[in-house]
Amino acid sequence: MAVYTQVSAERIAALLADYDVGTLVSAKGIAEGVENSNYLVETSKDRFILTLYEKRVDADDLPFFLTLLDHLAERGQPVPPAIADRNGRQIQQVEGRPACLIAFLPGVSPGEPNPAQSCAAGAALGALHGALEDFTHARPNTLSLPGWHDLAKRCGDHLDDIAPGLGGTIAEELAFLDAHWPSDLPRSAIHADLFPDNVLMLGNQVTGIIDFYFACTEIRAYDLAVTHAAWCFGDNGTGFDAERSEALIEGYESAHELSSAEAAAMPVLARGAALRFLLTRAWDWLNTPADALVTRKDPGAFLRRLEFYRAADPEIFLP
Amino acid sequence: MAVYTQVSAERIAALLADYDVGTLVSAKGIAEGVENSNYLVETSKDRFILTLYEKRVDADDLPFFLTLLDHLAERGQPVPPAIADRNGRQIQQVEGRPACLIAFLPGVSPGEPNPAQSCAAGAALGALHGALEDFTHARPNTLSLPGWHDLAKRCGDHLDDIAPGLGGTIAEELAFLDAHWPSDLPRSAIHADLFPDNVLMLGNQVTGIIDFYFACTEIRAYDLAVTHAAWCFGDNGTGFDAERSEALIEGYESAHELSSAEAAAMPVLARGAALRFLLTRAWDWLNTPADALVTRKDPGAFLRRLEFYRAADPEIFLP
Repeated sequence: MAVYTQVSAERIAALLADYDVGTLVSAKGIAEGVENSNYLVETSKDRFILTLYEKRVDADDLPFFLTLLDHLAERGQPVPPAIADRNGRQIQQVEGRPACLIAFLPGVSPGEPNPAQSCAAGAALGALHGALEDFTHARPNTLSLPGWHDLAKRCGDHLDDIAPGLGGTIAEELAFLDAHWPSDLPRSAIHADLFPDNVLMLGNQVTGIIDFYFACTEIRAYDLAVTHAAWCFGDNGTGFDAERSEALIEGYESAHELSSAEAAAMPVLARGAALRFLLTRAWDWLNTPADALVTRKDPGAFLRRLEFYRAADPEIFLP
Repeated sequence: MAVYTQVSAERIAALLADYDVGTLVSAKGIAEGVENSNYLVETSKDRFILTLYEKRVDADDLPFFLTLLDHLAERGQPVPPAIADRNGRQIQQVEGRPACLIAFLPGVSPGEPNPAQSCAAGAALGALHGALEDFTHARPNTLSLPGWHDLAKRCGDHLDDIAPGLGGTIAEELAFLDAHWPSDLPRSAIHADLFPDNVLMLGNQVTGIIDFYFACTEIRAYDLAVTHAAWCFGDNGTGFDAERSEALIEGYESAHELSSAEAAAMPVLARGAALRFLLTRAWDWLNTPADALVTRKDPGAFLRRLEFYRAADPEIFLP
């Protein structure tokens, strides 16, 4: 969460001249999202986010993300599409990086979501899935079960430096998921990273769903499992929040009903979701210097979620 | 340039409730200014900057800075005053840090100022000095000649790790300044850090002067010397820019004339200004891990300015 690439006001003004969006009034580098550089740009007409894609986003994936956003925006979903310049181009080159000028959406991300906000987030995810039923583009999920194996292997013995026994727990969980991961559930494009950070709200209303840079083709109900792991636990060790959980599932089902097979798979999918973030956080933990300005997110938060899901009553996923 | 302290939307909304500024619509952490945490906050009524003061700003100095900003804003200077809450308080506590809600000013900082922008910046500095003539509060400058000696001593032999011979050059320069630093020039509150980063412009008009957190009581013409060192050199090794220099001095004198004693002292003051930034950058260089996300600013840029000023024709400072 920092600005990796500095872009001068002159460069931003020159970029805006290719668009029909007014002239530059203000530009502030913002600390937001995955590892991209973002500027909040105000023009004489409107506000925008200028995103420069750093190494974590593969430029070859950008057309998929932008097509997805256009598809959703056309269907009235609260997502920020990339603006096209006068020549119809959405992707530019700025300071040697692919870059997009993106619609600005109002709203703030809840720090500790209340049940009404969790319900709204669930409903927004359900509506998103509904709007994606006729979306035909595909992008493989590099962070699926084989990817988790690969990450665990690359972390190797260092996992135990994070917490004693962590390597063993992860190996055991991978074996469980190999045996139980569902293979016949409906698949679609999913957000795959719908943390509260990526939902903008005014009060209890969702005004924006952002940061689609992990979007991929995956078991659709896995998206709900990720969202469950992301929303239904107090960040400060307060653990599982049954009220948020119930509200999230209810909200989702109000917009997009789970099949009985999907509902039955939720406990396994949730374990997979917890493991996915445990592994990527563990990897980042082991590969981020302790004194770097990016805050290393605690892998332990997702180890505790995984442990919760291993012991949880499957009923928590029923509306 | 990063957000050091995370503030939740809930905390920002609660803070705004103490003010008569509308309700929270958007909040983005912005990468700006000295080592503070800044949020660009939009409400239903207006936009603001929420600044949390991190360790580099001494909380005891805040009343001086805020009084200075109020004084300047009352006199029509384009500075962003801190907003008072319903109880008249400008300084709050947010996440354990002193914090202020500050007026938002439009405009962007020029990356490579043109002569017209340099002229406008000079005129804005002159107008600032004019408006400060009746300002009576004082704050000592910790980065004056004794402070430079102290910094050089603390950097010690490591200076030569930055550039061979740098320690010797600095010792020599300190001896020169000890012998020639003026003692009888007019003093006043000064900005002391008026880099292009700290000037907001729309086209060639100054719309904001920001980041007063080095403001102090000092030889007034030293502020022009700092601004000269900050504005009149191409950043990419292109060296001294005579056009910008001429424009800056002309602009300044159009708003606030230098006395002949001040004009005569400019070559020495400019050497001091170059040394000040050379030393603080050298210190930061030696004390910032190479892989930290804050970009270490190149001390060499100010070594080259110092070398330029040592050899420069004093006439460059005459309008």
